[in-house]
Amino acid sequence: MEIKTTIKATAFVMLIAGAIAATSCNNNKNQNKMNENNTSLFPKGEKLSNDWFSGNAFLQTLLARDKNNDFALGSVTFEAGARTHWHTHPKGQVLIITEGEGFYQEKGKPAQRIKKGDVVNIPENVEHWHGATANTKMVHIALTNYEGEQNVTWLKPVTDEEFSEVNK
Amino acid sequence: MEIKTTIKATAFVMLIAGAIAATSCNNNKNQNKMNENNTSLFPKGEKLSNDWFSGNAFLQTLLARDKNNDFALGSVTFEAGARTHWHTHPKGQVLIITEGEGFYQEKGKPAQRIKKGDVVNIPENVEHWHGATANTKMVHIALTNYEGEQNVTWLKPVTDEEFSEVNK
Repeated sequence: MEIKTTIKATAFVMLIAGAIAATSCNNNKNQNKMNENNTSLFPKGEKLSNDWFSGNAFLQTLLARDKNNDFALGSVTFEAGARTHWHTHPKGQVLIITEGEGFYQEKGKPAQRIKKGDVVNIPENVEHWHGATANTKMVHIALTNYEGEQNVTWLKPVTDEEFSEVNK
Repeated sequence: MEIKTTIKATAFVMLIAGAIAATSCNNNKNQNKMNENNTSLFPKGEKLSNDWFSGNAFLQTLLARDKNNDFALGSVTFEAGARTHWHTHPKGQVLIITEGEGFYQEKGKPAQRIKKGDVVNIPENVEHWHGATANTKMVHIALTNYEGEQNVTWLKPVTDEEFSEVNK
């Protein structure tokens, strides 16, 4: 009878394990369904250096420059309050905002609110910054054209005073 | 008293109109909130010609070629069953899948399933097609590089037999 009991006990354990697996599987399915509809297009990627970004910004590289594509392509996630330093691009940059809301500002001009679905065509050699608002995250695809070996020149940080001013 | 009645009646109409406007405004707000989380990144745009696309495909232009950006940028929506004809690009194309699931197939190779979050770097002068699956829609950003004045050469339609084969 000992063997029979063991079999029964094993069957019971397997039944429970199966039930847990089924539940977990179901959760994953729901999770995927949720991802499909609600969550970010790309992974967040690696944290970007505070040498060039204030706060928590992240880069997921999508494509490196190659013989056909004379640009770098990546997804940049700015947590609330995060932003680039002031900078210029020698051959411009295109931003495609894929999530949230933030700012784009050219030196000496008022900041523009940018949000999911917007496309910004940044001219060459114009000092500017972009990033989240103080209270919302912002995610954009960045398509950064090259001129020779260069595609960006970093300048000074956007100060807390400058950032507060556009968030008023 | 006639004037007073008219004023009263006008006030009543304005009250009703205001209430309708407020409700409609509120609906818009909710709609925007829903868009932010759940719906497509870009509008569907204009239907693409069946000279080059099978089924219902749509283009929302995001950016035309200019002095910095040597490519056309657009969002293409393929309803279930829709696909491009076979075609080539003289300087390649990059697809960024933003919604749903579909196929990318190079001539003589098995079709690849592509889905939200995938990036496809299509080589120059390789005959291929892309589109939805038979049962799901697919939306992608298309970044199409130019060589001279040309960025695509259209070839034959993907037949129903070819399309059925990859959907098996």
